[in-house]
Amino acid sequence: MVWDVLNVIGTIAFAASGAIIAMEVKYDIMGIYILGMITAFGGGAVRNLFIGIPIIELWQQTTLFVIAIITITVLFLIPQKAISIIREWNVFDAIGLSAFAIQGAMYAHSIHLPFLAVMFSAAITGAGGGIIRDVLAQKKPSVFCQEIYLLWAIIAGFIIGIGWAEEPYQLYTLFSIILL
Amino acid sequence: MVWDVLNVIGTIAFAASGAIIAMEVKYDIMGIYILGMITAFGGGAVRNLFIGIPIIELWQQTTLFVIAIITITVLFLIPQKAISIIREWNVFDAIGLSAFAIQGAMYAHSIHLPFLAVMFSAAITGAGGGIIRDVLAQKKPSVFCQEIYLLWAIIAGFIIGIGWAEEPYQLYTLFSIILL
Amino acid sequence: MVWDVLNVIGTIAFAASGAIIAMEVKYDIMGIYILGMITAFGGGAVRNLFIGIPIIELWQQTTLFVIAIITITVLFLIPQKAISIIREWNVFDAIGLSAFAIQGAMYAHSIHLPFLAVMFSAAITGAGGGIIRDVLAQKKPSVFCQEIYLLWAIIAGFIIGIGWAEEPYQLYTLFSIILL
Repeated sequence: MVWDVLNVIGTIAFAASGAIIAMEVKYDIMGIYILGMITAFGGGAVRNLFIGIPIIELWQQTTLFVIAIITITVLFLIPQKAISIIREWNVFDAIGLSAFAIQGAMYAHSIHLPFLAVMFSAAITGAGGGIIRDVLAQKKPSVFCQEIYLLWAIIAGFIIGIGWAEEPYQLYTLFSIILL
Repeated sequence: MVWDVLNVIGTIAFAASGAIIAMEVKYDIMGIYILGMITAFGGGAVRNLFIGIPIIELWQQTTLFVIAIITITVLFLIPQKAISIIREWNVFDAIGLSAFAIQGAMYAHSIHLPFLAVMFSAAITGAGGGIIRDVLAQKKPSVFCQEIYLLWAIIAGFIIGIGWAEEPYQLYTLFSIILL
Repeated sequence: MVWDVLNVIGTIAFAASGAIIAMEVKYDIMGIYILGMITAFGGGAVRNLFIGIPIIELWQQTTLFVIAIITITVLFLIPQKAISIIREWNVFDAIGLSAFAIQGAMYAHSIHLPFLAVMFSAAITGAGGGIIRDVLAQKKPSVFCQEIYLLWAIIAGFIIGIGWAEEPYQLYTLFSIILL
């Protein structure tokens, strides 16, 4: 349950952040959808590759695919002005990173991976999508210049990795803490 | 058979496009060969990773490796002026994308992957090599600004995914349509 | 034994080179550690993906992780001036590439991969980390403009692939030759 909630939050946040950056660098409509999708699913895909999860699971997330497409479509339809405000607000990246970092750590922890892998999984699930997005938009990966979020993500991975946070309320608290 | 023809066409087209871009950004001879090879095989390699094909198959394509090396060598030997004409013509990208998109979709379809995966396989096989090429040459990935080809590639994936095109003549028709 | 020595040398050299480039492009402290780690482990990770090694092995290299972190910390603590001298000296890239190329070739050879895969493994293990580093730092991948090292790496892969160099002293000689 926590898992699904975080997954939906992260997917929406990253799909939005990818689409907004694609608009910023003037990609066309196809580019906006693709960059949104890559940002939303790239982190999880790279994580699955590296921690050795059967990649096939990626193709069973039809609901998340639909959610991401709806998110991008909404962003496409709202007025340009609203986008500028959202962009300045700049909160999608932080939300997506927090949600996916915890989800990634939970995933790795649930299949009993070694400690180091849980922390790595938190970092790559949280930051991977954004890094791929920035590389494809020819921007400096923001994660290298906004240390604080990724550090928290790794700490969250640490906490989950040693089994301190397993109850839903603990995980939501962790999510809120990273965010603030 | 269709499979092999498309594979050869796509490999030649992408090897050429990678080599031409490497020349454009003034990489040295080694860089030209490497970028050509990466463009030709990158899309298929990433696809294999994501749809869970044993990657070892990549190492059995000796014929294609030789074809790619010959293509790049030819480009290296023809006069600079011919290259400029080819570059303006700018057709290699479209040919490679069409050929590989159909081949990628056929591949995924032949191993009974879910529907979404067939479309993804068409997109990543067709566009992956070009995206990696542009990132390594520090260019904006052209696929984000030339919507139309990738859209057709995904539509081709859709058509193959639902089993509408299985006869060779249908597949060649599909290839020609995307190209035009 | 040779294996471990090369692994430690390569890890130190690439961790240092990643951290130095991160300082150059003014990433913050977190960015410096991350880019150092990615440069040190990226090549091996990508190689494992492509030659089909269980990726889990990556998570058992705790010693190497610690070595990389110490390397970056040392670089972080020494005076700025020393860094400039090291940077001009520019030797870490060459050392890392040589060490990892041989190690990558040995790895692929030891699990009886086809010939082409041994050469590819040498190239990607040696050059992969540096390519990822340059892409993330928004620089032109240096490997495309410094042909000579990668060429030697591939030749080393060739020599190891056909089984000419299996004794430690031969492998160390190979390492020295590439370096010079």
